[in-house]
Amino acid sequence: MAALGKHLLLELKDCDAELLNNMEYLREALSSVALSIGATVIKDSFYQFSPQGISGVVIIAESHISIHTWPEFCYAAVDVFTCGEVIQPAMAVKPLADKLKAKSTSYIELKRGLLTESPATAGR
Amino acid sequence: MAALGKHLLLELKDCDAELLNNMEYLREALSSVALSIGATVIKDSFYQFSPQGISGVVIIAESHISIHTWPEFCYAAVDVFTCGEVIQPAMAVKPLADKLKAKSTSYIELKRGLLTESPATAGR
Repeated sequence: MAALGKHLLLELKDCDAELLNNMEYLREALSSVALSIGATVIKDSFYQFSPQGISGVVIIAESHISIHTWPEFCYAAVDVFTCGEVIQPAMAVKPLADKLKAKSTSYIELKRGLLTESPATAGR
Repeated sequence: MAALGKHLLLELKDCDAELLNNMEYLREALSSVALSIGATVIKDSFYQFSPQGISGVVIIAESHISIHTWPEFCYAAVDVFTCGEVIQPAMAVKPLADKLKAKSTSYIELKRGLLTESPATAGR
């Protein structure tokens, strides 16, 4: 059964704590990883929490990449949600792990929008 | 084992197609649902695709709510990612389904950030 979207849920552990609290670094990292897997970056929105931690989303033409960081635990939760057949979200795993210097990486990939009607006529 | 985050993945089917293509309606809907479950809205970012479909994210102090819509299939994928113990993302399911007039709703809730270290000292 065809799916409208692919949704990768990525757990990055034992990351570099300073990078996880550097909003401009994360903004650049997510956008550059998005481009590297062939996505089209539309806009982004990031927020720095006090005393630490960052939430951010890059909206791409193919859906989104989001991140939430807990520098105090050297942990980041990253989601890569894509639609269409061209982009494979799993291609983002290694570059994201490298950007955050994660020593432990795990992920699952889910299908979203499993419809009985064919998505072949989808407008995007 | 304690988790840093709760992540609800919501599939809304047989929604009102016009609502799924109304960006201002969706922006208001997601923000009001976020407030109704006790979340603190920080900012949002929405994008209208051509010929149809909307992607949007509301960043909340507790993480995020995102939506991707396919009006042509009357389908929306919504994610509610929260941290902390106060907010229960499942409380957002019925109000979100109501807002989009979904006739079919299904969801799963996952734990994110299952760490061996206790999150009791987390800064947020």
